[in-house]
Amino acid sequence: MITRLCVIGVGLIGGSLARALRQAGCVEEVVGCSRNAAHLQRAVELGVIDRFETDPALAVRGADMVFVAVPLGAMRAVFAAIAPALAREAVVTDGGSAKASVVADLNDAVGETPAWFVPGHPIAGIERSGVEASFAALYRDRRVILTPLPETSASAVGKVRRMWEAVGATVNEMSLAHHDEVLAATSHLPHVLAFALVESLARKDEQREIFAYAAGGFRDFTRIASSDPVMWRDICLANGPAILSMIERFEQDVAGLARAIEAGDGDRLLAIFRDAKAARDAFAG
Amino acid sequence: MITRLCVIGVGLIGGSLARALRQAGCVEEVVGCSRNAAHLQRAVELGVIDRFETDPALAVRGADMVFVAVPLGAMRAVFAAIAPALAREAVVTDGGSAKASVVADLNDAVGETPAWFVPGHPIAGIERSGVEASFAALYRDRRVILTPLPETSASAVGKVRRMWEAVGATVNEMSLAHHDEVLAATSHLPHVLAFALVESLARKDEQREIFAYAAGGFRDFTRIASSDPVMWRDICLANGPAILSMIERFEQDVAGLARAIEAGDGDRLLAIFRDAKAARDAFAG
Repeated sequence: MITRLCVIGVGLIGGSLARALRQAGCVEEVVGCSRNAAHLQRAVELGVIDRFETDPALAVRGADMVFVAVPLGAMRAVFAAIAPALAREAVVTDGGSAKASVVADLNDAVGETPAWFVPGHPIAGIERSGVEASFAALYRDRRVILTPLPETSASAVGKVRRMWEAVGATVNEMSLAHHDEVLAATSHLPHVLAFALVESLARKDEQREIFAYAAGGFRDFTRIASSDPVMWRDICLANGPAILSMIERFEQDVAGLARAIEAGDGDRLLAIFRDAKAARDAFAG
Repeated sequence: MITRLCVIGVGLIGGSLARALRQAGCVEEVVGCSRNAAHLQRAVELGVIDRFETDPALAVRGADMVFVAVPLGAMRAVFAAIAPALAREAVVTDGGSAKASVVADLNDAVGETPAWFVPGHPIAGIERSGVEASFAALYRDRRVILTPLPETSASAVGKVRRMWEAVGATVNEMSLAHHDEVLAATSHLPHVLAFALVESLARKDEQREIFAYAAGGFRDFTRIASSDPVMWRDICLANGPAILSMIERFEQDVAGLARAIEAGDGDRLLAIFRDAKAARDAFAG
């Protein structure tokens, strides 16, 4: 049971956790925080939070659990503001899509690796954003990755794990570096490719006639290019090395495929497409 | 009204046209043809076709409309078989995803560019295939592109256009080359990228642990990698030059994006992502 949850950044991710914990009966009070009071007032009206503060240091006062769900580019300033104001028993976790950069920002802001911070990442994004899009079932049957450090308190990890399990998620632990590599492969690279493809076509064809002939497959493939540009800029800056390494690997594989097309090598193409279909069908169940 | 429709290749595309024309009351008799009699018997049981022949020359006898819906790699042999057996008034069209190669195969098989052939492409694929997946509404509100040549009979084009309009599609005409370029951009390139990405990840991670952390965005992005590998091999071989040109263009754009990530150029990344989101939201809206 959480006595007072403080959610910093009351959007889809933060708002959905608040809703879900409330629905599960696992939280007594929810305090929201962001820079926009009108936005926070809307969250109160929606029943997502009980009250709000626009100053993070005031917002975390007396909270036993703090969830930081701001864009990666805003993490450092939040950590600097809340660290001196945290209650003694407070546990802090976050929802950032890249973990090494969050820990670096925290260490930079606090001057050490604190025991009370549990780096976390709920793998549950959708293209919509904002508190209006939040809903209690967002994390049900989803995965949450925690990347605790040697300095992280085991009891803090346990509290964060139980919080996510209470809202229906499956929790896995892995290293920071492995998380950032896995997410670069399964999330960051596909988003970069989808943005790049749509932008490439839009620039090629000023009249955008080309999109009129795009069928369902193209819609699915490019849906993630509707995601929040600021969030994805921050992710690219925060997880640059892992993303660049995945891009390089992918470029080599596409170049290999292009060589097979150029050579008219039907057997090679068929082998690649069959392997891909088998892997896709297996993971999609 | 079509008196006798002959569908060569009774799968999703051919089967759905037969079902739709029958539902619209626009066809009297449907004759199916493929190499597999058991498969054709199933199509009769499903009510998709009235009877069948496994020899294309027998199947087209007396048909006033012939729809060739076989993989691109099988077009040439079908054209060679049917050309001498067509009724005088017969109109032939096809459903191939690349048009220059179909016309080249036809010319090669027949020795000329016949007036009776209308190259066509219904933009309505889904990942499933086979006659069991066929349904009458597949072409409703979809686009069909016709790419008639100077030699093509205007009345043949009119008949094919009316057939597609009768099943709810919107028909556009364009040149062969423009069709192949547009489809390379909106369909062939995305499929190649999705296949390449999934195969790349599957090869990188033998245990496929990585896929466990793939969220909805990844599922959408890679759905088209579940498409039929043989069909896509044929498309890559048939539309190679246009696909290679799109891959090259795309590789340059991804390289530019990678440079922006490497340089930590947040403004450039944001501009690319914003343009892409605007274009995606506009066409999907």
